[in-house]
Amino acid sequence: MNCKLLSIALLCVIFAPAAHSQCIPRDEKVEAQVEALLAKMSLRDKVGQMCELTYDKVAQNPVAPGAPKTLAGGMLSADAVNEVFSQYRVGSILNVPFDIAQTPEVWADIIRTLNLASLEQCGVTQLYGVDQIHGASYTWGGTLFPQEVGQGASFNAAIPRRIGEITAYETRACLIPWVYSPVMDLARSPLWPRMWESFGEDVLLNGIMASELTRGLQGKNPNSVGMYNVAACLKHYMAYGAAVSGKDRTPSSVTYRDMMEKYFQPFRMCCEAGALSLMVNSSNNNGVPFHANRRLLTEWLKEGLDWDGMIVTDWADIDNIWNRDHVAASKKDAIALAINAGIDMTMDPFSTDFCGLLIELVNEGRVPMSRIDDAVRRILRLKIRVGLMDKETWDMPYRSSSKAKKNRKSSFKGDVEGLYPDFASDKFAREATQMAEECMVLLKNEQQVLPLKKGAKLFVCGPNANSFRTMNGGWTYAWQGNKTDDVAAKIGKYRTFLGALEQKFGKENVAFSEMVRYDERNFNLDHKTQDGSQAGGTVAEQIAAADVIVAFVGENSYTETVGNIDDLSLSHNQQDMVKSLASYGKPIVLVLNEGRPRIVSGIEPLAKAVVHTFLPGNYGGDALANLLSGEANFSGRMPYTYPKYHGSFITYDCKPCEYVETMAGAYNYDANTTVQWTFGSGISYSEVKFANLRVETPKAVGKTKPVKGFTPKSAAGTKYDGDLLFTVDVTNQSDRKVKEPVLLFVSDLVASLTPDIKRLRSFTKVELEAHETKTVTLHVRPSDLAFVNEDLQWILEPGKFRAAVGNQRVEFTLE
Amino acid sequence: MNCKLLSIALLCVIFAPAAHSQCIPRDEKVEAQVEALLAKMSLRDKVGQMCELTYDKVAQNPVAPGAPKTLAGGMLSADAVNEVFSQYRVGSILNVPFDIAQTPEVWADIIRTLNLASLEQCGVTQLYGVDQIHGASYTWGGTLFPQEVGQGASFNAAIPRRIGEITAYETRACLIPWVYSPVMDLARSPLWPRMWESFGEDVLLNGIMASELTRGLQGKNPNSVGMYNVAACLKHYMAYGAAVSGKDRTPSSVTYRDMMEKYFQPFRMCCEAGALSLMVNSSNNNGVPFHANRRLLTEWLKEGLDWDGMIVTDWADIDNIWNRDHVAASKKDAIALAINAGIDMTMDPFSTDFCGLLIELVNEGRVPMSRIDDAVRRILRLKIRVGLMDKETWDMPYRSSSKAKKNRKSSFKGDVEGLYPDFASDKFAREATQMAEECMVLLKNEQQVLPLKKGAKLFVCGPNANSFRTMNGGWTYAWQGNKTDDVAAKIGKYRTFLGALEQKFGKENVAFSEMVRYDERNFNLDHKTQDGSQAGGTVAEQIAAADVIVAFVGENSYTETVGNIDDLSLSHNQQDMVKSLASYGKPIVLVLNEGRPRIVSGIEPLAKAVVHTFLPGNYGGDALANLLSGEANFSGRMPYTYPKYHGSFITYDCKPCEYVETMAGAYNYDANTTVQWTFGSGISYSEVKFANLRVETPKAVGKTKPVKGFTPKSAAGTKYDGDLLFTVDVTNQSDRKVKEPVLLFVSDLVASLTPDIKRLRSFTKVELEAHETKTVTLHVRPSDLAFVNEDLQWILEPGKFRAAVGNQRVEFTLE
Repeated sequence: MNCKLLSIALLCVIFAPAAHSQCIPRDEKVEAQVEALLAKMSLRDKVGQMCELTYDKVAQNPVAPGAPKTLAGGMLSADAVNEVFSQYRVGSILNVPFDIAQTPEVWADIIRTLNLASLEQCGVTQLYGVDQIHGASYTWGGTLFPQEVGQGASFNAAIPRRIGEITAYETRACLIPWVYSPVMDLARSPLWPRMWESFGEDVLLNGIMASELTRGLQGKNPNSVGMYNVAACLKHYMAYGAAVSGKDRTPSSVTYRDMMEKYFQPFRMCCEAGALSLMVNSSNNNGVPFHANRRLLTEWLKEGLDWDGMIVTDWADIDNIWNRDHVAASKKDAIALAINAGIDMTMDPFSTDFCGLLIELVNEGRVPMSRIDDAVRRILRLKIRVGLMDKETWDMPYRSSSKAKKNRKSSFKGDVEGLYPDFASDKFAREATQMAEECMVLLKNEQQVLPLKKGAKLFVCGPNANSFRTMNGGWTYAWQGNKTDDVAAKIGKYRTFLGALEQKFGKENVAFSEMVRYDERNFNLDHKTQDGSQAGGTVAEQIAAADVIVAFVGENSYTETVGNIDDLSLSHNQQDMVKSLASYGKPIVLVLNEGRPRIVSGIEPLAKAVVHTFLPGNYGGDALANLLSGEANFSGRMPYTYPKYHGSFITYDCKPCEYVETMAGAYNYDANTTVQWTFGSGISYSEVKFANLRVETPKAVGKTKPVKGFTPKSAAGTKYDGDLLFTVDVTNQSDRKVKEPVLLFVSDLVASLTPDIKRLRSFTKVELEAHETKTVTLHVRPSDLAFVNEDLQWILEPGKFRAAVGNQRVEFTLE
Repeated sequence: MNCKLLSIALLCVIFAPAAHSQCIPRDEKVEAQVEALLAKMSLRDKVGQMCELTYDKVAQNPVAPGAPKTLAGGMLSADAVNEVFSQYRVGSILNVPFDIAQTPEVWADIIRTLNLASLEQCGVTQLYGVDQIHGASYTWGGTLFPQEVGQGASFNAAIPRRIGEITAYETRACLIPWVYSPVMDLARSPLWPRMWESFGEDVLLNGIMASELTRGLQGKNPNSVGMYNVAACLKHYMAYGAAVSGKDRTPSSVTYRDMMEKYFQPFRMCCEAGALSLMVNSSNNNGVPFHANRRLLTEWLKEGLDWDGMIVTDWADIDNIWNRDHVAASKKDAIALAINAGIDMTMDPFSTDFCGLLIELVNEGRVPMSRIDDAVRRILRLKIRVGLMDKETWDMPYRSSSKAKKNRKSSFKGDVEGLYPDFASDKFAREATQMAEECMVLLKNEQQVLPLKKGAKLFVCGPNANSFRTMNGGWTYAWQGNKTDDVAAKIGKYRTFLGALEQKFGKENVAFSEMVRYDERNFNLDHKTQDGSQAGGTVAEQIAAADVIVAFVGENSYTETVGNIDDLSLSHNQQDMVKSLASYGKPIVLVLNEGRPRIVSGIEPLAKAVVHTFLPGNYGGDALANLLSGEANFSGRMPYTYPKYHGSFITYDCKPCEYVETMAGAYNYDANTTVQWTFGSGISYSEVKFANLRVETPKAVGKTKPVKGFTPKSAAGTKYDGDLLFTVDVTNQSDRKVKEPVLLFVSDLVASLTPDIKRLRSFTKVELEAHETKTVTLHVRPSDLAFVNEDLQWILEPGKFRAAVGNQRVEFTLE
């Protein structure tokens, strides 16, 4: 009893919230503008600002009777635009028109038209948001980069940073100020159909990569994002990638402790990097829909981090609170729950019911006016920060007359086209190609089958060999990415894997039979194609004439619930294809091109080399050709654990009892988990040696008190006079230049909660000339080794730890 | 802030522990005896009582040099017995000698010898514990019943009750007073190699069946178990069946809320049924090893339920606290953690280090003497309750001289054999057969292929057709069940599935080819056997002569980590076998005989009928023959959800978002999960109609205050003047007698935490003559519809609910 009372008493005393600095420095000019706008708004105005509709609601409907007035070159209905802004004062519109990417010209016309209408009707410019993922992916012609999972594989934080910059630039070239990126969900269920949208399974990797992508998107000053940057939207708060059944939008069962220690941290890091908005996980956790979770939305995020950004729902998710999750009896009750929990803007795409219901709730005292004002302040703050209240950033024609154009440089305003001359430029394309090279992983290379010899004769096959759709994945030109081959063909300047190999090795040296083709209607189906239908003879004849087989397998594009699958195995047709190829006795290079790790344990042994390309984007073909030819060197590493069997899903940071050696005595309680490729796996064409791993530990200089902290920096325990410094010598023993990821893992050897086997605590990437040695030092704050205890406090326990880099190990003690 | 403070304040105020009645009424005579024994014990005596060793430590080692003195007919080493009791004062011994079942005679000799030695050396009789699962399974000749998963399928609570009674009787016939049964882990991971040891996935089903098994084992008075009953040991506290990776002894990630609402409840029900001891889950949950979890062991169980029973570790699990889970730096630290958490007895099977280390810990003040006394009181109380301090219950020869025997009735003491005349009797065998009939499930029966016509010619095949090992599963005669065919053949009175079919249909009507055979060394491997090697011609010839094919597929026996698998699919050889059988065009009856649901979606469509036998024990062959011939009728229902695909694991009580219909508009967020057979599935030879489901709801008569409750009965909310009464008419529309399970599911339609889609709230089984109608009334307490909120309080929210029985639905409201 005493213990129980004591612990309750402690709970009351010690959980004084820690003092946090604001994530984004307060800009008094912005705040004054917010207050001035807010002061003029009625409740109706305010509630309208909190409402976000889909483009469909303002779209010109071509089959409507009569001949309604149109706007934006026929893209918008004048009546609908008028109704949305004048009647409902709607604050935001989202989505791509008619589920197909639009040119910057069309986009700019739409956005400018909506901005002008909303500014006139509401006194506040609407905020347009778009899913620009891996580049300006809803913009016709936009430069497309590897999807996030590939970026994660690069272990090079400069890559998401630069991708963010170019994405922002090309998005702003459409006058769009807001993108729903980055994703930092930890991809912990390999079945999850959005695994590829994140940077992989690790906390630190997601945290660093997403922070850098945020910085790239938003530029240097989040209070003044400017004309070449956009507001980021962190997704999806949180634990979305931990669905128990692996299906999209299904429940997770994560404790608050795990939330705090793992899932929350990438969001925390991005908020500290200045992220301006955040979108909520559509599902629920342990019975609580995330959209109704006041603790997570308000206590942890807004109050805990002192973060003044804006929270938006995901698609129709307030509806899901009542009609799917049954925690409210009506839409009105659901709105009250969500807004009181901390939702600022509702993506209620097809309905304006929200507005009237929320007004009723305020009038009935069920949602306090202070909550409405807080939400609208956050919305207005975001709009001001991205420049929407500054007409100069968006009120201009797409293209000026040629005369005006000639004189462009003398006029600041100019036109959109002139302001973004690098849109879809060759410069961006070259950068995208180089980045894609770093985002692929060489997993196996027996008998140095790679790089391919010059003049080698290749037999290329598989459903992923000649497809822009599979190279790009979902959210590319269209939601499911199913229009990519059509769009890419029309743009005409990209090369598929096959096209790039033909270009690199000579068309005469590359024979191709598809062998297996994806179904056009169901992303998860494929069928065998007729053998021998290709020019160049039958498959057998083509292979007989080849030196090496390059087989492209994986998945077709998908996202969200459409991408749900029941079986993670690579399709039987593709497995059969590889088995049949193996019968010819020629070396097989297996190229994986997929959004999640389809199980390949049955065919992997048949390949001499395995390359994982993830979803490399439109320049993935060129990048792979550069790598296979040896012009470029591999430098990626696995950003997640690739399972070997259905019954053995695991992440690298699991608990020690997943790996238990045989026990002495009567009972053999071993338990080992076999994976295909572990987190961090990957090789290159160069042998790189790690040596002399050593560590300098800081000195203890006092104690810190326990606080309810949201960051490891707040950890209770010993205070130290500096960082841990890990130093290791890295030598390129080959004749070939290489970039080598240096991954520092640390294991806590004893802790009051079972420690993970190991955790990635720092990483960098070092460029080494042939036979060059570099000494790399990695800083780790002692608090980075802290963990969250059952009372949700970060604590740093002294004791023994073990660090590992490559094959090097060093033990150290924190006093 | 106000909310936060308020909720903390509430936490302090409202969590006054509820007044609980003792699970087992206090028996002052027992308590006085405990105190008298305790008063005489030194610290060394006490610590010894807390130590449990494996039989190996007292075994006679036949290869030891010299000719050491032996006891118990050569089974025990006199020196070892002396050392264990005189030097270490060891309180308990467990396990089966030499991993092979022993006859009652040998057992009785061993136990009596150990009892006498310990009583003499320590003043307290040792407590011998054995894994008697599904009957006296470590006793040569013991009557073996269906394993628990099959008992769950019966939905007949009288079955585990009677199994408990017979198991206790036959165990006591070995003078063994303590069994490690029942298991009530919710089987929520289909990969888990101990799924079959529980009653399935449901809370209520496990709770009721395990309580009845407990009552059957212990008899009517837990304070005086007597000579025909044994102490039960509840396993494995808790959430053992929720391993995230599905592997045995690997971590679960269950919230305390879920623990309280689901995993804890079967244990609570069994404690209230008088269970005398409990064993702890070997793994850890969210970083906390269960063996070090004071909250669960002491606060919930001992204090929360006011339960005075004894907690024992599982195998070597204090060692696992430090050398596997790393939450202690040494064995000594681990002992301190575990004992202070609430462990009373340590199963440290090969080592007596525990004793010295615990004495040091007490002397150093790291473990309070009060904790030691509490533990030893619980151990002594258990020993007294099972009669160990009453020599009359065990100090007797196994067999008296024939003269003494003749006069047995006049002498109470008599001999063991005479006291247990029904051991392995035909009576028990008949009961076991009838029970096994109720523990099988008919899942499919197209074109009434079943029952088989009299005189039908059968072709029988498959690795499970002629195996006692597969019928019984693990923990049968030996740990892995791998010696069962040998033992059963020696006993000579049982029939395999094949044997029973031959007996029932006539040997001349049954042709058999094994076709696939299990590997002798690895339970999870099998190989194809030579076609045509059997008498009766080739498989093709045998099938040509047959009317129907009966294919026995499934798994070989296993348990614990040995049974870990990477892939849940039925073996490829067995799948190929069924596919090849299908090519003959004869109807196939697919009989499943397996401990967990191996995926059969690829072959199930090829079968006209499917029967699940689970692990029916030695009389499973006879039971199946009675069912297939139509002499008996099927009456089982699935006790768990049988998955259809690897990527779609789910339980029936999942959240609504696992089943979402297509959404209107741009995005189709449907998500549906396809299973092979859902929880509760199953048919019989009779068509049974449900009609007129109606409900009487009680009236609200007041409010109850929130308490920190451990049972739904403590739920806060409205108080009602009675139970809910659900009534339904059940009609047997066939000419055949049937037992029909009546399963009442209730769905909460709105709740403050997303309610499960449905929950089993009551069940019974009703026997119906041909064309008989019975009206069945099921009582449900309003508090049975309560749930646990995030503050770990049981609450009952008023509102709408929907009940379902069969195809009947009724909505009702709790005011």
